[in-house]
Amino acid sequence: MARASADPEALFSAALQGDRAATARLLSLIERGGEPGRVVGRLAYPKSGEGYTVGLTGAPGAGKSTLTSATIGHLRSLELEVAVLAIDPSSPFTGGAILGDRVRMQDHATDPGVFIRSMATRGHLGGLSLATPEAVRLLDALGRKWILVETVGVGQVEVEVAGKADTTVVVVNPGWGDSVQANKAGLMEIADVFVINKADRKGVEETRRDLEQMLDLSDLPHDAWRPTIVTTVANTGEGVSELWDVVLEHREYAESSGLLEERRRFRSSEELREIVANRLRERARQICTGDRWDEVTGEVTEQRLDPWSAADEMLAPVDA
Amino acid sequence: MARASADPEALFSAALQGDRAATARLLSLIERGGEPGRVVGRLAYPKSGEGYTVGLTGAPGAGKSTLTSATIGHLRSLELEVAVLAIDPSSPFTGGAILGDRVRMQDHATDPGVFIRSMATRGHLGGLSLATPEAVRLLDALGRKWILVETVGVGQVEVEVAGKADTTVVVVNPGWGDSVQANKAGLMEIADVFVINKADRKGVEETRRDLEQMLDLSDLPHDAWRPTIVTTVANTGEGVSELWDVVLEHREYAESSGLLEERRRFRSSEELREIVANRLRERARQICTGDRWDEVTGEVTEQRLDPWSAADEMLAPVDA
Repeated sequence: MARASADPEALFSAALQGDRAATARLLSLIERGGEPGRVVGRLAYPKSGEGYTVGLTGAPGAGKSTLTSATIGHLRSLELEVAVLAIDPSSPFTGGAILGDRVRMQDHATDPGVFIRSMATRGHLGGLSLATPEAVRLLDALGRKWILVETVGVGQVEVEVAGKADTTVVVVNPGWGDSVQANKAGLMEIADVFVINKADRKGVEETRRDLEQMLDLSDLPHDAWRPTIVTTVANTGEGVSELWDVVLEHREYAESSGLLEERRRFRSSEELREIVANRLRERARQICTGDRWDEVTGEVTEQRLDPWSAADEMLAPVDA
Repeated sequence: MARASADPEALFSAALQGDRAATARLLSLIERGGEPGRVVGRLAYPKSGEGYTVGLTGAPGAGKSTLTSATIGHLRSLELEVAVLAIDPSSPFTGGAILGDRVRMQDHATDPGVFIRSMATRGHLGGLSLATPEAVRLLDALGRKWILVETVGVGQVEVEVAGKADTTVVVVNPGWGDSVQANKAGLMEIADVFVINKADRKGVEETRRDLEQMLDLSDLPHDAWRPTIVTTVANTGEGVSELWDVVLEHREYAESSGLLEERRRFRSSEELREIVANRLRERARQICTGDRWDEVTGEVTEQRLDPWSAADEMLAPVDA
């Protein structure tokens, strides 16, 4: 019984009928990568395309989880359903459980209109940069119209993952300048919306001026979207409905201007590139092993075959 | 004229007849990688195999350059010729000039029995892990019997490069424990000889005890070489001839025990693996570009082709 239900196709059918445990198991298959994950991907692919992703990122402590939770509350008040992927590349694997510091999100844990999942990679060779779009595609295929992708931290991976959403929200705090110096440029590049969260603290206006100034310097084309700056106090919910209005405004702009299509095309190309690179890595692993490999290595060591000719020989079946 | 002399074969002939400028230019070709570098490799390969490499590594400031310079002096007093590759992955490209902080080595700059070269990578795709063995092989082919490979720093790359010598010397100072905490394990793994340099300072005995203790804990097989600990004051030359005697002792052990053969075999296999991986990376770059790539990316975006089937299609010529 337990084994039969691990079959991706059976799980997918169950998930389509609203079985949340089946959805969770499909996401685990994606995390693990390999052939079963790929089967999930192929099942989800033709059914996807209707969902819209909103990325949320910012330095640890900026209040992303609280803001995500408040946003979920707002969407539910509008009777919208929502799925949340909480991604933390640096955290140890969490087994798909809600992360410890996401306690506030548990307010929504029993609401059938909300699906929350934290993601890690349990061996997926492509890491989160491949597992995340696959997970998004699955939730999309299962009918989630809004998918929030929250990443913890402002490292390169986090920024990259968050920046691949349809609309990306960057969360900062008053006085952010000092805390995220390291990757300001990366954040500027991906932001469609800036949220100054914890706006009940000192320094909101300075931070706004700082952001506006950086936007002035960033040399946007005159018909491009200029990132909007919103202030929130996620704890009390203040500013959250305004934030959502700006997200909707950006969505409208992205859909009408061709930006959304362009972004999705770029994402497809990036994903494809990753898949190709992975397959070749896998191929390299296969080539550099076995009897023939040992033999060739011996010939190189004994000065009978130079390493470039040896590589030619090992790569011959691939170089056809 | 200038163009004709850039021909690797002509340069190689000139270098074989002792033309040092030609040797320097061949090393530049290796640094740059690509086809000319590969030609140099193929020319050098059949003539190499007689040289013996000694790796020197340790934390910045441990006195490696001074020790290298003192060792050169010692070898010259024995009427031995020597080549030195000074490798610094973190420094900007130096154009093949002697690094600024290697002033002491300039004592030997006009000695025809000494060849000193600092190495960086000027675009070699495999980086220093591929360029270094190629450079060593060239110097070997040109008749250098002793090749010192000095790496600056104790990062992973430095340790890896130094650890691929026939005999590896790790330079520490009294009280080293605090300064190289980060990669102690890596250094323990590659050391055949430990030098406590600046042994005129306090703490030599504590450092020796610390090293001995780590060696006791490292669980060496009972017939393995136990790294010897030598003390030097490179500034004055104290201990340098003892260091060299230990290097010779290790060489004898390595040659008679089969260790040298085993190491060289491992190195061949690692180099071959790197070359294969590089070629596949190059192949991935070729695949992920061009009209067909744009077309396939479009199909994926427009939901007409899933990304895995798209990857299959792009990889078909390679998967034969």
